Amino acid sequence: MENPVFYFDFGSPNAYLACRVLPGIEARTGARFRHVPVLLGGLFKLTGNQSPITAYAGIPHKLAYQHLEIRRFVARYGLTAFRMNPHFPVNTLMLMRGAVAAEAENCAAAYNEAMFHFMWEEPRKLDDPAVLQQTLIDAGLPAERLLARAQEQEIKDRLAANTREAYDHGAFGIPSFLVGKELYFGKDRLQDIEEELRAKTAQPAERSAAGPVGSE
Amino acid sequence: MENPVFYFDFGSPNAYLACRVLPGIEARTGARFRHVPVLLGGLFKLTGNQSPITAYAGIPHKLAYQHLEIRRFVARYGLTAFRMNPHFPVNTLMLMRGAVAAEAENCAAAYNEAMFHFMWEEPRKLDDPAVLQQTLIDAGLPAERLLARAQEQEIKDRLAANTREAYDHGAFGIPSFLVGKELYFGKDRLQDIEEELRAKTAQPAERSAAGPVGSE
Repeated sequence: MENPVFYFDFGSPNAYLACRVLPGIEARTGARFRHVPVLLGGLFKLTGNQSPITAYAGIPHKLAYQHLEIRRFVARYGLTAFRMNPHFPVNTLMLMRGAVAAEAENCAAAYNEAMFHFMWEEPRKLDDPAVLQQTLIDAGLPAERLLARAQEQEIKDRLAANTREAYDHGAFGIPSFLVGKELYFGKDRLQDIEEELRAKTAQPAERSAAGPVGSE
Repeated sequence: MENPVFYFDFGSPNAYLACRVLPGIEARTGARFRHVPVLLGGLFKLTGNQSPITAYAGIPHKLAYQHLEIRRFVARYGLTAFRMNPHFPVNTLMLMRGAVAAEAENCAAAYNEAMFHFMWEEPRKLDDPAVLQQTLIDAGLPAERLLARAQEQEIKDRLAANTREAYDHGAFGIPSFLVGKELYFGKDRLQDIEEELRAKTAQPAERSAAGPVGSE
């Protein structure tokens, strides 16, 4: 089976929350998500979409409900390490270029873990170049090499191409997912994604046992 | 246990879709939803929110995804009777006042069924007074009596009070739900609501068997 895809940007708290749930889904389904860095700001430009904090600025009830849903998700999955970043929203252009550079340098997993950790568990102001550099060093990553490569045109172009790829699949926000060619948006679709992956991989008996609550 | 609440307006396709799933949840949990008619337009005025069709008018990918999620929901629950109403959006002021009048006349269940049916299964232009009257007659409801009562100040006030009640619980759109004092928004929260109702009503052994996929 084709690997499912996780389109992410470190700046999205919902991307962080989803990211922390993916290993469990992988363990239960045998699927392995391909992590694809995209630039959320670029996706917004392509689609005309806005961040919830902008779009819902005049709708306090809707903003409050977003936070309620985050608290529920944190409680459901026991994600007690989560902290809102006091510097939110953080400009992620350098961070996302860095993620593409880290792929080229074969340290993407460690890089992504460090960025999510220092964005949403021990929050730092990662759009400050000095803070970013120190954070890479603290994480044991090749800071100078990654920051240099993040400036290369090929790296910049690949991030733009990733963003365009997500757009071409219908994405308009982060986190987005692909199972086959099917787009799913938001951390709240992870149960549907897991069911879909089980349906694609499991034996008939297992499929029945793992059937969705709602379709009994 | 206090009855969970379903805040609805016939004009919302997602309210119709949710409504069709509630009986199964009731059968599986033993809970009984209290159906509370509200005016979605009034809720939008109170909160500053807008309908998706307005809010997402400039974001084609987001509108397309709403339709994709409707198709998935229809497929998941086998709601093959659903048809988009060609007259959408339909002004529901008279219909929602009629729902309050139907409560006062002890025919709310039949009235609500007729309105949802002729809005989203055999779609009619229900904001045309003549069409509404004929529809009530076709459904075997006391058309003249209901339409007369819908003009009473007490009925108008009760609809406004229902809408205010939903607002006071944090609602900003339809369908919204309450389990205890906890607000849930959207048809996509029905599995969470079912889990919450099971947790409140079931024996420990049953709770474990019915646990959410994602929290194994």
